[in-house]
Amino acid sequence: MHESIINYISKFVSLSSEELSVVESCMKFREIPKKILLLNAGDICNFEAYVLKGCIREYFIDHRGQELTLEFAVEDWWVSDITSFENQLPSTMYIETLEDCQLLVLSRESKDELLARVPKLERMFRLMIQRHLSVLQKRLFRTVSYTAMDKLEEFTKRYPSLSQRVPQHYIASYLGITPEFLSRLRNRQLKVK
Amino acid sequence: MHESIINYISKFVSLSSEELSVVESCMKFREIPKKILLLNAGDICNFEAYVLKGCIREYFIDHRGQELTLEFAVEDWWVSDITSFENQLPSTMYIETLEDCQLLVLSRESKDELLARVPKLERMFRLMIQRHLSVLQKRLFRTVSYTAMDKLEEFTKRYPSLSQRVPQHYIASYLGITPEFLSRLRNRQLKVK
Repeated sequence: MHESIINYISKFVSLSSEELSVVESCMKFREIPKKILLLNAGDICNFEAYVLKGCIREYFIDHRGQELTLEFAVEDWWVSDITSFENQLPSTMYIETLEDCQLLVLSRESKDELLARVPKLERMFRLMIQRHLSVLQKRLFRTVSYTAMDKLEEFTKRYPSLSQRVPQHYIASYLGITPEFLSRLRNRQLKVK
Repeated sequence: MHESIINYISKFVSLSSEELSVVESCMKFREIPKKILLLNAGDICNFEAYVLKGCIREYFIDHRGQELTLEFAVEDWWVSDITSFENQLPSTMYIETLEDCQLLVLSRESKDELLARVPKLERMFRLMIQRHLSVLQKRLFRTVSYTAMDKLEEFTKRYPSLSQRVPQHYIASYLGITPEFLSRLRNRQLKVK
């Protein structure tokens, strides 16, 4: 079993070796090349995946055809459209790999089985979702209240590695600005430093 | 015990009468008058409350002194700064009653006790937080991609009773517009109809 998921789980709950083997049997290891669309808007999301390696982007497309990047998921993070996944409803978002990825994947059925056999994991998923909620609340606040430069500085500070790993136009669509404006901000940052 | 919380719980998990009495002993009934600040930014949030009656507002204040309303909580909804509550860290938000409220309140200690004695409730809290996350994801998308008029129409459709219950300047601060602009939008809506 992969060490990083064992470490992840142990931050939240203590599992016996029997319980860990249930986790192992329920979570399927998958290697997905970069630039693969894992979820298309309109489809039902049938996965909740823990990222062992790689980088994934979740995004919306608005009525003008513009993309809004909701989240980048990297190592030790989870990715899913949880609303679609839990309620088996068509998704409104897109999910794609930006790099070659290694994932541990739960389907709807295997998550049900996992929680039925290891109910303690309800707690882990609750706390994981709480962390997501907390990140998103702060994101909404920054979206409304920060200047573009403040948002960029916060982003660079919070995700230092992502600025190097992710194409700039995706970072622009996370910050809600055009790639050209992001480039101007970066030049301004360089001049100030 | 209050019927609405029993109905709420039964949507997620099935509890025995013994387990329901643990819920009853852990959740304290509180009546709070309107316009009371339940949480001040900088303080640690020590409650997670189920709203039996009334309306509560969660908001941030940015560096320019402007308020951003994060959420209105009415009957059958939960209110807390979950990040501060779970991690016992100073909050960045404010929570205030807009109407006279009746709440069922969990403290940090009583929530721990409740979950220790009725672990099945982990599932309820997980699904409740997922619903919150889903609402917030859609909110972020609308904030970035919708026009002010679209946001107002969506708000009115989604929360038909709130437009009557809540002062207009709070709705404006939820939509991220000035009260004057909200008033112009409402006049335009009336003309179109």
